[in-house]
Formats: sequence, structure tokens, C-alpha cells
Amino acid sequence: MSGIAKTPQPPYYAVIFCSKRTEGDKGYGKMSEKMVELACQQKGFLGIESARDEGLGITVSYWDSLDAIKSWKEHSVHQVAQDRGKNEWYKNFALRVCKVERDNFYEM
Amino acid sequence: MSGIAKTPQPPYYAVIFCSKRTEGDKGYGKMSEKMVELACQQKGFLGIESARDEGLGITVSYWDSLDAIKSWKEHSVHQVAQDRGKNEWYKNFALRVCKVERDNFYEM
Repeated sequence: MSGIAKTPQPPYYAVIFCSKRTEGDKGYGKMSEKMVELACQQKGFLGIESARDEGLGITVSYWDSLDAIKSWKEHSVHQVAQDRGKNEWYKNFALRVCKVERDNFYEM
Repeated sequence: MSGIAKTPQPPYYAVIFCSKRTEGDKGYGKMSEKMVELACQQKGFLGIESARDEGLGITVSYWDSLDAIKSWKEHSVHQVAQDRGKNEWYKNFALRVCKVERDNFYEM
């Protein structure tokens, strides 16, 4: 999953999740892997891109509809992860729901 | 600039730039800093978020209009950087232009 997502022709939707972590792993790495695996299995999931350095983490997931984003948000296992995120893993985060209007891919 | 962007109430626009780098710096670090500095000075610029690890780099810039994104794309100094990006710095990349429809901020 570590790469550039192969998304279809726009329009489609993106969720940009940008976060600062607290110190220490506290089960974050394992849960993070599990969430990516589970997200991939959801109806309407199109792809995911993720990068993290000392300062910031950015994960962008792509979806075919706002309904698919809503269903993933409300998934019971994801809800548990969201609660632990707020209580243990994140100092702060921003989540943005977007409509992708156009895209452009380049390969050397 | 290393942090979560303080963007205004939606709607606004996001450019998601996801890339894989070639080996070695080749002037990338310096140009990258210069481009962030220059982007911040553009009309309609709202903020920027960036993270890079071994696999992938993701930079999301936020803008108040599609015109602002177009002007930044066509900025002469940015055009030089775009050409060097294709020729020297990136193995591949995806660029997506999106309309941010809603957002949600959390601070512990």
C-alpha cells in the first residue's frame, strides 16, 4: 500500500487527514496497519497514500462517494480507533473532506 | 510552516501533491524550501502541509480559488522548479485539485 494511489477519472472524493502524534507508539503502529487493511475492504474505497516524518503525518484516502466516507467513519472498529486516536495517539489533527475535480499523473 | 494549516471556513481548494523521489538531493531540499516560501507570498494562498518518509512525500497546499491555483502553477519561478522536478527529482507523482467541502479540527 505504500505508493501513489491508482484512482479512476475524477470526480471522486478525498479525505485528507493531517496529524501530530503524541510521544511513543502505544499500539498506534499496529492499529494503523489494521485500519488501512480494513479501509481497503470497504465499499467505495479507491486508494490511500500516507507519509509521516518527525513533524507531521498525512494520510489521504480516496472514495467514490460521500456515502462511502460516511460509512467508513461510522464503522464500529474504526470508531474504536478514532476514540483511541483522540485519547492517546494525536496531539492534534485536521480532517478535510474534498471533491477531487481533476488530477494529473506523471511517471519518469 | 511545519504544522497543520489554519484554513478558513470551507469551501476552499486543496492541491494534493504525492511523489516518489529519485536518489540523492540534487538541489531538491533548497528548491523545496524556496517554493514553500514563494507559495506563501502568492495571492489566495491559505496554507501548506507536508510530510515525507522513505516511501512517499505528500504536500497539500490550500488556496481560496481555482484562479489562485492556476496563477501559482504558471508562476515563472515555479515553472522552472516543475521542469526540474520532472527531469531530476521525481520518479513519479500525482497531483490532484480538490474542493474542500468540510473540515474538522481537533486539539488534545
